[in-house]
This record gives sequence, structure tokens and C-alpha cells, in this order.
Amino acid sequence: MLCIGLDTSLEQMPQHLLSLPTVDALAEFNRRIIASTHDLAVAYKINLAFYEQYGLDGWIAFERTLHAIPPECIVIADAKRGDIGNTSKAYAKAFYERYDCDALTVAPYMGQDSVAPFLEYHDRMTFVLALTSNAGSHDFQRLDVGHKPLYQAVMQSAMAWTQVQDATNLGFVVGATHPQELAELRQSMPSAMFLIPGVGAQGGDIADTLTANAGAPALINVSRAIIYASQDRDFDHAARTAAMNFLQAARSVRSTQHVQTPVNS
Amino acid sequence: MLCIGLDTSLEQMPQHLLSLPTVDALAEFNRRIIASTHDLAVAYKINLAFYEQYGLDGWIAFERTLHAIPPECIVIADAKRGDIGNTSKAYAKAFYERYDCDALTVAPYMGQDSVAPFLEYHDRMTFVLALTSNAGSHDFQRLDVGHKPLYQAVMQSAMAWTQVQDATNLGFVVGATHPQELAELRQSMPSAMFLIPGVGAQGGDIADTLTANAGAPALINVSRAIIYASQDRDFDHAARTAAMNFLQAARSVRSTQHVQTPVNS
Repeated sequence: MLCIGLDTSLEQMPQHLLSLPTVDALAEFNRRIIASTHDLAVAYKINLAFYEQYGLDGWIAFERTLHAIPPECIVIADAKRGDIGNTSKAYAKAFYERYDCDALTVAPYMGQDSVAPFLEYHDRMTFVLALTSNAGSHDFQRLDVGHKPLYQAVMQSAMAWTQVQDATNLGFVVGATHPQELAELRQSMPSAMFLIPGVGAQGGDIADTLTANAGAPALINVSRAIIYASQDRDFDHAARTAAMNFLQAARSVRSTQHVQTPVNS
Repeated sequence: MLCIGLDTSLEQMPQHLLSLPTVDALAEFNRRIIASTHDLAVAYKINLAFYEQYGLDGWIAFERTLHAIPPECIVIADAKRGDIGNTSKAYAKAFYERYDCDALTVAPYMGQDSVAPFLEYHDRMTFVLALTSNAGSHDFQRLDVGHKPLYQAVMQSAMAWTQVQDATNLGFVVGATHPQELAELRQSMPSAMFLIPGVGAQGGDIADTLTANAGAPALINVSRAIIYASQDRDFDHAARTAAMNFLQAARSVRSTQHVQTPVNS
């Protein structure tokens, strides 16, 4: 269930890589993180903002990163795109066709025709933002829109928009910083795929998250706590150790759950 | 007040340009549109999705387009970005520093910390999505969140987030397809800058829009109805004629308004 977030920036990577040209520093950092963790991670989430800020260098590094990810790992473009229909269609072409990503994060504010072009790709997974991990998630997502908060209205609407049986091409972003809401959502949506960011640097707790998620399908994303585990030359080994510690922590939570609820296991 | 939207795609541009390599076709189309309209347009809105779909070619064409726009015209990157704080910061760096755009469209779903990094640029104009021009604007933006629709809650919150006097660095996207709501908004926000898309191909009417906007500060965006006015070799002249027709229509609405309301003129 581990998804590693490649929020790669020159400011935060080990100093010794900065002697390389920007494009090589970004791509080499990612290549080494991927090489040392791909047997532990189910997915990699590439945060497009970090690449866009470097212009063409960033986009070339993004492409080289895509090639460095083994085919058995899921590639999520974390781009939070969304616009009017014909524009979302162009974004979908960019990420699902040109870059051949397996999944994409999409912002729902503009409604059905802004999300539908992504859902037309039945063999991809479109993650619609529901209840995000940041403090700003309290500003609008939790507003009461009539016996439910906005994020639940977004989720129910999106489920209605996909025409794929069991919605295997639709998932939701639900932050690890909201374990109570995550647990409530799992009562009504036990089979929906959730992308759960916010563990680690953002303050989400792995044990609380796994308990709340109740064994339902999810990718739990950790970015900074793994990729910036060390600033030394062996940062890739430190990232591997951090990833293994995550999995170890997850296993002990699961075994505790197993003991507590043997009937459901 | 005319903003020309550069929603440039190979599928829709004149066929004779397709003999050029992709990057040249995109950049040359834009260069000719800009050269023939820059004395008529106050601003150009570059829709990033249309460039992203062509990968590096698209980003190079985007940069060449930026260089083709004269300094007296406002450059709006229509990117609908927005993410958690440190990620929005990277998007702001991309568009306000690397590409030096004057303005950017931003999606508000993720709340204050997703918008604040853009508002830290006091000399740029961040356009927050409020009531968008598309059909999907009815799905969430109009939901009642307590004696007001969500889009008004978004606008009021964003006004509170900017720390610039009179909010000269904050504007809103309000679609021309909602003239009644635009008129209502202008009662309470006569001095806020609005970016108004949706005139032309999306069905918004220029007379209704200008009447509803009541002379308040606004950029009215027209994309397809101008840039794709002709598929012939003189498409740039056809674009100029379409832009002049827009301005002529706007002038006749204004002169009618002038006769009707001489006291306010």
C-alpha cells in the first residue's frame, strides 16, 4: 500500500547532487530513490509542481523519472488538474496518453464536465480530491451543503459520473490528517480506492490511518519523510530504511488489528 | 477589456500550418494571432492544457508565445493550479518567477494555504475560480453553504486572505454564462477585477455581459471565436476582424448604456 511521493526539489536534495546540471540532479535523485525502494513501494506519486518550477529541465526530469519506474509500479501524476470540458480533455491527453501515467489527481470545483474527460479513460485511475490533508481542507470541503459536507457531495457526484462498473477507474484523495472522517467514509465506501497523503511531514499517523481505513483499498503516500530521510551520499539507503520502517509499522498495526478483530480478518 | 484566449491546438488550427514541426506550428500560429491583434487586446490568456498535451514541444511553444506578447499586454497563465502550501509555492514560482506571467488562474477547493502562496506576489494578479462558465459550475459552486452559494463563500474568504490594500493582486473568474449572478456580484463588489470567460463558443453574450458587469474592472475573454475565426491562410486577419467586431459590439452596448444612464456615466 506504500506510495512514495517524489516531491523533488533542488533546495531539499543532498547537496552533493547540486554539482550536476538541474535536469540530471532531479532525474538522478529520483532514479536512486526508485532503484532502492521499488520492491517496497506499490506506487510512485510525482508532484508536477516541483518539476514545472524548473521549466523544460523539470519536464525532461519528469520524463526520465517515468522511465525509471518499473512497469509493476503504479505511476500517479499528482497534478490536481481540472478545467472546462475541452480543456480537461487536453489535460487527460497529456497525462494519460503522452506520458502514459496510470493515475492522475483531479480538482472537482468545476463539476462534471471538468472531471468526465478523465473518467473516459476506463483503464486509468482518476483520483478526485475529496477531503485533502492540508489545513485549508477546513475552509470549503467541510461546509455543510445540506445534511452533508461538501467533500461527501463531491464523492457521491463523482461516483454517479463514472460509467464504469464498480468505479474501478475512480478513486478519491482523503488525507491521513482526518482519521475520524476516513473511518466514517469507510463505513459507506468500503471498496473505493483512496489515495491517502499526509502521513509524515504533514502530521498524519500511520497507525491511526490504517485503523481508520479498516483494510480497505488504499495507497498511503509518504513523500518528504522517505525521500529526504538523509542529506548524505547514501540518501537512497536512508530512504529505503525509512520505507521499511513504514512497512514495519504498518505490519505491527495490522497484526494488532488481527488480534483484536479475528472474525473479520 | 478584451482578453484573447490562446487555446491553441493542432486539430483546430489552419491546415497549412501543419506542415511545420509541432513546436513551430503552435508558436507561429500564436505569433501571427498576437501580431495582428495586440493593439486590440488588453491581455492574452494562455491555456496551459493545450500546451501540456504536446509535452516539451508545447512548453517551448508556450515560452516562445510569452516572448511574442508585447510588454504592454497582460499575460494570464490559465492553469487552474492549486495544492497544499509547499506545492502551491512551487507552482507560484513556476508561473510568477520562471515564466514571469502577470496573472494566473487558481482553483480554490483546497482552501487558504493552497491559495496564499500565490497571493504573496503583490505585483501579480491571482484569479481565483468563483463561478465558472461551464455547465459543471452548477454541480458544486452554487450549493447553499449557509445563506449563500459556495462561490460567494469562496470570494469572501479569498478577499480575507489577501493582505494587499484594496486587493489589487486578487481577482475572480466569473463566467459570462451567468449574467444575472454577475450583475448581483457587481452590487457588492464594484471594484474587484473579474476575468470573464465564456463569451462566444461557450454561449455567453457580450451585450448581456457588459450590462451585467456595469462598467466594473474586467477582462472579457474570447478564445475560439477569435483565434479560429478562419481556417484560411489569412486566419490572422480574420482573427483581427473578429476582435474588432467584438470591440464594436462592446462600444455599441456602452453607448446604449450611456444614453440610458447619463447620470452615472
